[in-house]
Amino acid sequence: MRTASIHRLSMAHPGDLSELERLIKAGTVRAVDIVAIIGKTEGNGGVNDFTRGYFTQTLMALLSQHRGRPAAELIHEVPCVLSGGTEGVMSPHYSVFCVSDTAAATPQHASALAIGTAFSPKVSAEDVGRRAQVESVATAVRQAIANAGIEKPEDVHFVQVKCPCVTVARASAAIAAGRPPRTSDPNRSMGFARAAGAFGVALALNEIAPNSFDDDSLLADFSIQSPRASISSGVEVESNEVVVLGHSAGWGGELRIAHRPMTDALDIGGIVDVLADLGIAASPQVSARDAGRISCVLVKCEPDRRGNVRGHRHTMLDDTDINAQRHIRGAVAGLVAGVVGDGRIFVSGGAEHQGPDGGGLIAVIASQGLGGS
Amino acid sequence: MRTASIHRLSMAHPGDLSELERLIKAGTVRAVDIVAIIGKTEGNGGVNDFTRGYFTQTLMALLSQHRGRPAAELIHEVPCVLSGGTEGVMSPHYSVFCVSDTAAATPQHASALAIGTAFSPKVSAEDVGRRAQVESVATAVRQAIANAGIEKPEDVHFVQVKCPCVTVARASAAIAAGRPPRTSDPNRSMGFARAAGAFGVALALNEIAPNSFDDDSLLADFSIQSPRASISSGVEVESNEVVVLGHSAGWGGELRIAHRPMTDALDIGGIVDVLADLGIAASPQVSARDAGRISCVLVKCEPDRRGNVRGHRHTMLDDTDINAQRHIRGAVAGLVAGVVGDGRIFVSGGAEHQGPDGGGLIAVIASQGLGGS
Amino acid sequence: MRTASIHRLSMAHPGDLSELERLIKAGTVRAVDIVAIIGKTEGNGGVNDFTRGYFTQTLMALLSQHRGRPAAELIHEVPCVLSGGTEGVMSPHYSVFCVSDTAAATPQHASALAIGTAFSPKVSAEDVGRRAQVESVATAVRQAIANAGIEKPEDVHFVQVKCPCVTVARASAAIAAGRPPRTSDPNRSMGFARAAGAFGVALALNEIAPNSFDDDSLLADFSIQSPRASISSGVEVESNEVVVLGHSAGWGGELRIAHRPMTDALDIGGIVDVLADLGIAASPQVSARDAGRISCVLVKCEPDRRGNVRGHRHTMLDDTDINAQRHIRGAVAGLVAGVVGDGRIFVSGGAEHQGPDGGGLIAVIASQGLGGS
Amino acid sequence: MRTASIHRLSMAHPGDLSELERLIKAGTVRAVDIVAIIGKTEGNGGVNDFTRGYFTQTLMALLSQHRGRPAAELIHEVPCVLSGGTEGVMSPHYSVFCVSDTAAATPQHASALAIGTAFSPKVSAEDVGRRAQVESVATAVRQAIANAGIEKPEDVHFVQVKCPCVTVARASAAIAAGRPPRTSDPNRSMGFARAAGAFGVALALNEIAPNSFDDDSLLADFSIQSPRASISSGVEVESNEVVVLGHSAGWGGELRIAHRPMTDALDIGGIVDVLADLGIAASPQVSARDAGRISCVLVKCEPDRRGNVRGHRHTMLDDTDINAQRHIRGAVAGLVAGVVGDGRIFVSGGAEHQGPDGGGLIAVIASQGLGGS
Repeated sequence: MRTASIHRLSMAHPGDLSELERLIKAGTVRAVDIVAIIGKTEGNGGVNDFTRGYFTQTLMALLSQHRGRPAAELIHEVPCVLSGGTEGVMSPHYSVFCVSDTAAATPQHASALAIGTAFSPKVSAEDVGRRAQVESVATAVRQAIANAGIEKPEDVHFVQVKCPCVTVARASAAIAAGRPPRTSDPNRSMGFARAAGAFGVALALNEIAPNSFDDDSLLADFSIQSPRASISSGVEVESNEVVVLGHSAGWGGELRIAHRPMTDALDIGGIVDVLADLGIAASPQVSARDAGRISCVLVKCEPDRRGNVRGHRHTMLDDTDINAQRHIRGAVAGLVAGVVGDGRIFVSGGAEHQGPDGGGLIAVIASQGLGGS
Repeated sequence: MRTASIHRLSMAHPGDLSELERLIKAGTVRAVDIVAIIGKTEGNGGVNDFTRGYFTQTLMALLSQHRGRPAAELIHEVPCVLSGGTEGVMSPHYSVFCVSDTAAATPQHASALAIGTAFSPKVSAEDVGRRAQVESVATAVRQAIANAGIEKPEDVHFVQVKCPCVTVARASAAIAAGRPPRTSDPNRSMGFARAAGAFGVALALNEIAPNSFDDDSLLADFSIQSPRASISSGVEVESNEVVVLGHSAGWGGELRIAHRPMTDALDIGGIVDVLADLGIAASPQVSARDAGRISCVLVKCEPDRRGNVRGHRHTMLDDTDINAQRHIRGAVAGLVAGVVGDGRIFVSGGAEHQGPDGGGLIAVIASQGLGGS
Repeated sequence: MRTASIHRLSMAHPGDLSELERLIKAGTVRAVDIVAIIGKTEGNGGVNDFTRGYFTQTLMALLSQHRGRPAAELIHEVPCVLSGGTEGVMSPHYSVFCVSDTAAATPQHASALAIGTAFSPKVSAEDVGRRAQVESVATAVRQAIANAGIEKPEDVHFVQVKCPCVTVARASAAIAAGRPPRTSDPNRSMGFARAAGAFGVALALNEIAPNSFDDDSLLADFSIQSPRASISSGVEVESNEVVVLGHSAGWGGELRIAHRPMTDALDIGGIVDVLADLGIAASPQVSARDAGRISCVLVKCEPDRRGNVRGHRHTMLDDTDINAQRHIRGAVAGLVAGVVGDGRIFVSGGAEHQGPDGGGLIAVIASQGLGGS
Repeated sequence: MRTASIHRLSMAHPGDLSELERLIKAGTVRAVDIVAIIGKTEGNGGVNDFTRGYFTQTLMALLSQHRGRPAAELIHEVPCVLSGGTEGVMSPHYSVFCVSDTAAATPQHASALAIGTAFSPKVSAEDVGRRAQVESVATAVRQAIANAGIEKPEDVHFVQVKCPCVTVARASAAIAAGRPPRTSDPNRSMGFARAAGAFGVALALNEIAPNSFDDDSLLADFSIQSPRASISSGVEVESNEVVVLGHSAGWGGELRIAHRPMTDALDIGGIVDVLADLGIAASPQVSARDAGRISCVLVKCEPDRRGNVRGHRHTMLDDTDINAQRHIRGAVAGLVAGVVGDGRIFVSGGAEHQGPDGGGLIAVIASQGLGGS
């Protein structure tokens, strides 16, 4: 019987994996059990955010050392999903997802947290933000669901995808090769890539039909959305990387996951509700005891593209100094961290088609037992 | 009997006072009744934030037109306290504080919101951040309290001060004149000016003794603090401008004010408590009906200078791309706006000596009657 | 006989017009002679740069006072073309263009600097970046040429246009009204507006034929360009404002203008050549004596959208922290200021279709006599 | 007889050392010959610039692979001096300094480029920006001169030092340990560290006497300066790393170095002069043929802390959006690249005490033969 465990660790800088190294050396974590990493690094979260690549390189060198296999192989096996940008109260950290086979003890719960991962083939520059990327993501999500042994789509609670985008250099090369990408603007490319990822998740989870959209629907028809899709995009990945989180009767352990849409950036109700789904009260803040049960908080959010929040004008989209995604991450993280009482939360911007338009989603993983993670 | 009223208005840009102009033309607001403005403009909140000067110039031109007096005089009579920076979900807005004399109807409440204002003489560059500025602020605060008719210091709930700071040019001139300022660094100068303002408020409210501090205490001894001081600093003012808000039996109307310290940037409890002080529940969010009673939300906050929030490292102070004050304003505003359900909140950074170290304070003004403001 | 004069003045902040006020009070400048202002303010040059509006409001109040006419009228008669962003060594300043009628002395030169201005009607949000705006600009340019009395198109050396763009709010309103703009993204809108301005200038100067382009050519067919077009865009203008500078036999005085394309951001040869056109040597720097003859330096530039400069990758377009226009303005201003020996230069980004792709243009106005301006 | 060679290579991102790897694999470069790297990475150049650490980690892994020794040792033997920030036209690149022993052919020149390196012991947080760091740097510089076999101090042309600074976390730890650093502000700490480095170089080169300064002189007495000191500071180094470049009769090869002070950010004369020292004309730009002879361009610069350049106000120091060092690097790089015709130049900010106040210095290495580098 498989059992998932999560270690949420802090880093002193994007190349600092000393906490994980310590756990591996102490035998607390077995390097071969690590199936995925989801974390926040302190870059700007944009095209020129190299903190993600730096962390990934460091991680793969560490895993290589302890698993005795080349980093160049591991990077295509262990999804390392990093979101750059720890604006405001967010604290740079990473959650290490481990899976171990335990003796089939009498399971205390009918089902438990199940994890599955998958990698798509490389995505070429001209496919970014087009149906080819949507299909590629959908295929990988289905593989990850199967890999997790999750039987029904409704048991999937969260699908994290990391999608490649174009840089100016990649776009120029593609144009020179006669295969123009959807856009040469890297920031716009990241948006299209995230949209393609969300469509791919929705397709894999049967939330949308294959013929219900075309290329023009991306970043345009915001009625298409998946409340379980969390998509990041960055220059440092070449293929779509997928981590599926859900419940399965085939898994043991104390961890469970819940998710809720967030209707907008002020939707504190969604945050309180998802905690309640896991039996955790926030009145107004999660108690220190319950906070110890929480393993992982995963949030997607988005500056409302219509320019206002609940009828009042915001300035995020008109700001030439600070990227809009940095604005919204900082604001939503301030709210979620205030409710949870902890800055070690994954809040990622760019929630196009991921939850309600102008809002996003929140997922929380917590232990159902008395002990913390 | 004096009665205070507050109009919270939105702006389309920092030079847009059309909503106030409309109210004046409609007779809803009498220009002569306006005693102070507190607002948020969409600049960066730093030395080179000219949105405050732009708004002020526009306001004074409007008041001049409707009061038949030169703007150059009014600017030294009506405090216009603007905090730049509407990071995240904050919405650019301004609260117009009006005072009118009403026939002495039987007052429904034993006391009501009282407002007093004062201006200090000009502060020279070399006095910024030194005892001379502290004393100057204290004197002005005492004048404003007297002006408001507030009898006891404990009835003061909030003192807003706008303090001048130095620019590189002002600092150079002072150095050339043989009177070097505490610092030539404008951002540091703003910090010293805010510290001097907080010390001045604490001195005026008898929270500290005159001999309990010296110049070296500013930005150093953080045990000295006033939980009722809210200090902004900017290049566009030359003297310390003071607005005192409290309660007085000599005032009528429905408005009351409450304040609470915020222990840190995650102190959602302080926010909920200050609302409860005014009979407003947030479970988890203020209801639309109660939100209509709220006239003004005033918050000061600060990136913890020790580099962590509740034990977890934050990155605000090490960020060369985004000013730390912009980070913290965005985060705390996200939390407060989420509880209140409204982005029209005044959240100002630079809370040195204003409330607990690493935290700040929150004050709310709300109507005690059934109708909104 | 008309004579042009230019006063290049410094400002302490975007609302500081004290130098002009002093000249007017001293009688050096007659307020009624002022026909246009071109300047650099210290904002970010983007959508949320309000330094331009602040300066303009201050200027119009000053002109209103001295011309005895409402500012609301003057703003539609005197083009006030400001480019935000004084990155690096640029110094905030403004050039005041004056025209006076002088007794027909024997002209020393066959022709001299001639100035003409014009305003188009308001441009609606949906017209921004489309043929309607191109035509609107072209019409205004032709009016300004006529107004200047310039007889031949080849005698036009520089056409400055300030074009309106959309904000998120304007775009949302237009969409709600069923007239969607080309883009809702303000930064992209500024790009389309600049492109429309450049096409309009090229059309008016017979550099392109009316049927040689359509809406899709803007920001796409970079073979279309005008080496004499300098276009700015900003939220603070509603109509296309045009200033034409050239030579005419009907004008007197010592000032002459020259212009050159810049092939790329390293084209120091173009700078040296345009100075040589006016009889000014730079070996390597303009002498202090010759620098005194220079009245105005006007530059447009652009981060090469193909991602490299002379074969080496640049990072301007992939930077999430600093806007690409701010990058290029700082670099090109560093080069031009180094050659000229003076930071009071107008260097404006966003040179799409204005000069060679990836480059831009430079125009210089200098006195041909011995005295300075 | 030792011979120095330099390979100037481009990178696609801060973790890309593929060009060097290719040269090593092709046998063009022997990994053991590499004695130092000086380069520009595309970070922000501030405390939170991790592009330097990312590059360094990648470099050391590459060297480790090819030299068969642990990266943890090599990092203390091969100085990797990176300056973050490729503002404007700068292109991310790195210069690989190699030294090989060649058969003692008849030397064509009396002396040639000589290179020496050294590492100081670790610098503790409380020593940063104090005499202890000055002395530590001076000792390391003397070691590097000896290592290079440079006989006379006047034959030293350029000393590059990379100095550690404090982060908020390091500062907090030092304070907790009762050993407070000079400042807890990371950006200020970088300034003090650079000042200490410059003093250390000046001390080692006998430009200043040991008793001519104390801790208070740093960042205060700007008459103390070394026109040959180039100091960077960053969080990723723990000891002072030194690279000395000069001339020695004991070295062979075609490379020679020259240096000049730059009096201010507009000093194009200094640039042209240093090129002339090497027999290279710039009229106004270096010819393509001569550009091929240039191996390395090294520049230090500084935003004038008095707030103006040649009498005209600049806005670099008052800008809350863009760090002043990013401003000045972009401007000076624009000028130097325009003269040289190449964006692959090392322009580093923070030139306190390195060359004239408000200016800096430039050094160029070029081949004296006909072939390129």
